[in-house]
Amino acid sequence: MNISTNKVAVIGSGSWATALSKMLLENVGQINWFFRKKETVERFKKLKSNPRYLQSVEFDLDRIQFYTNINKITSESDILVLAVPSAFLPGILEKVKSDLRHKYILSGIKGIVSEENLLMVEYLNKHFNVPFENMGVIAGPCHAEEVALEKLSYLTLAGLDESKAANFARLVNCNYIFTSVSDDIWGTEYTSVIKNIIAIGAGIAHGLRYGDNFHAVLVSNAIREIKRFVDTVHPINRDIKDSAYLGDLMVTVYSQFSRNRMFGTMIGKGYSVKNAILDMDMVAEGYYASKSIYEINKKYGVSMPISEAVYRILYENASPKREIERLTKKLT
Amino acid sequence: MNISTNKVAVIGSGSWATALSKMLLENVGQINWFFRKKETVERFKKLKSNPRYLQSVEFDLDRIQFYTNINKITSESDILVLAVPSAFLPGILEKVKSDLRHKYILSGIKGIVSEENLLMVEYLNKHFNVPFENMGVIAGPCHAEEVALEKLSYLTLAGLDESKAANFARLVNCNYIFTSVSDDIWGTEYTSVIKNIIAIGAGIAHGLRYGDNFHAVLVSNAIREIKRFVDTVHPINRDIKDSAYLGDLMVTVYSQFSRNRMFGTMIGKGYSVKNAILDMDMVAEGYYASKSIYEINKKYGVSMPISEAVYRILYENASPKREIERLTKKLT
Repeated sequence: MNISTNKVAVIGSGSWATALSKMLLENVGQINWFFRKKETVERFKKLKSNPRYLQSVEFDLDRIQFYTNINKITSESDILVLAVPSAFLPGILEKVKSDLRHKYILSGIKGIVSEENLLMVEYLNKHFNVPFENMGVIAGPCHAEEVALEKLSYLTLAGLDESKAANFARLVNCNYIFTSVSDDIWGTEYTSVIKNIIAIGAGIAHGLRYGDNFHAVLVSNAIREIKRFVDTVHPINRDIKDSAYLGDLMVTVYSQFSRNRMFGTMIGKGYSVKNAILDMDMVAEGYYASKSIYEINKKYGVSMPISEAVYRILYENASPKREIERLTKKLT
Repeated sequence: MNISTNKVAVIGSGSWATALSKMLLENVGQINWFFRKKETVERFKKLKSNPRYLQSVEFDLDRIQFYTNINKITSESDILVLAVPSAFLPGILEKVKSDLRHKYILSGIKGIVSEENLLMVEYLNKHFNVPFENMGVIAGPCHAEEVALEKLSYLTLAGLDESKAANFARLVNCNYIFTSVSDDIWGTEYTSVIKNIIAIGAGIAHGLRYGDNFHAVLVSNAIREIKRFVDTVHPINRDIKDSAYLGDLMVTVYSQFSRNRMFGTMIGKGYSVKNAILDMDMVAEGYYASKSIYEINKKYGVSMPISEAVYRILYENASPKREIERLTKKLT
């Protein structure tokens, strides 16, 4: 790939898509950017910023080609960066008729396509025949809000073809984004999925008035739980203490602003799952992830006490108080 | 050891000593408790609580035998729990004339005896001929303040003689303290020492306006740095992701109330080291630890970029801004 001639498309209008667009524009002359709604594009053009997310980031409109037609943007771009909530992905991609097999496609999605319990890379491979070598995962401990403020952040670009991942890394690397490259697309994607379940669990415990001492125990057990799972599902040589795994877990579970944690806190405080969902603007990714990981793990049988406690609370009407109490006896 | 017949002494009057006394009194009928100052004992007796720390915890005075004579308390006790700042330890212990070799001695001290760069267990072995088998370390992610509130916390009792450590574990185990046992006295003590240096580093970065994304990267690099060091100094089979190591690191570096972090934040914001020390009621343990670990590591040559950056800032007048900038390029 050549930085100057390749066309990069960002698919998504949320805060992470906006942060990724900002990074890309540090290096590429122009990006293609997909929005589902024409009104959003109109308002973006008026405000010179995303009307709903990271509004402080001003964009140079000359350097953005806006699209609302998914077919058009995919056929006119070489690199696709997917950053929509995983629940919306099938609905958006089902309209794609252009051939995706020779695109380089990156997932900035931290979730699972829950209807089929597939990671984004697996979904694209199955439905669009995109070879795994042509896909990557953008991972790392990274709140989009801090990218907006140009606070130093580290991203890991994971791809089976490390040279392609490295090429993309160069497109987002800048004075506030440091990048590294790995070949672990499964491990990084699964970690970014499971961490949201853990964040719900941490929120539930917090809502039940467990404190910081317990939280630290929960998180140190969680990284071991994640390691057991990813080492079983995709056994390669990885250090789970790397920033892409442990760092990503920590930045989420220690964030007061995490939607997943907030969702869990509401449940810990006594909201029913239904009411917690209704009360939030948007469903927390971890809610779907919990069911998917539970189902995927039926095949592997990995010991996942934290994820399973969250699953039973969210889907089997188990008492949060009793489940967390049971969990406390399994942690070390 | 027999729970009912052994006399336990707590040496120290700070918040951690107070928390340990509270736990012990869940299981033993009476404890011996050493204070340096008679006035503190008088005020304690009036208030039925420690006048300066964890004041919300009320004690039954009938169950405490107060001492201000270190010789008396050590000769009249079988188990000694040391919980004084490491800087005060030599001054207190130098007056001890009784034979300590057959006591069981536990360190609740998270610091190094800096004059000689010795861990507490090494210090006691060298100066009092206490065999390593007769010593233990109390480790774990545990703010004393949460013990006061009876929030569930997990402690690890490390001792070369695991049955003795397990016996002590039973003395503090209760409905809000869960315990486990390990044989890693060096690893847990060094981790509890180095984590304070890391907390200073995290504070410096915070003071310099680095954000949560960077913090997560720093901490995930820190646990790898700690692992390299303890695996070199004392190479046994340990999982650094256990609560006694990773949990202890996290609860410290994510605590807004950590003295070490606060000390670092002041330096990051532009205070000189001298003024930061003057401004704080008490010197942060990590300040001394930084020098000791730096000197100990001269022998081992472990790569410790975070600890070394902190050392250069604290002791070599290096610019915090430049040191952290240099450090950012070494982290992954």
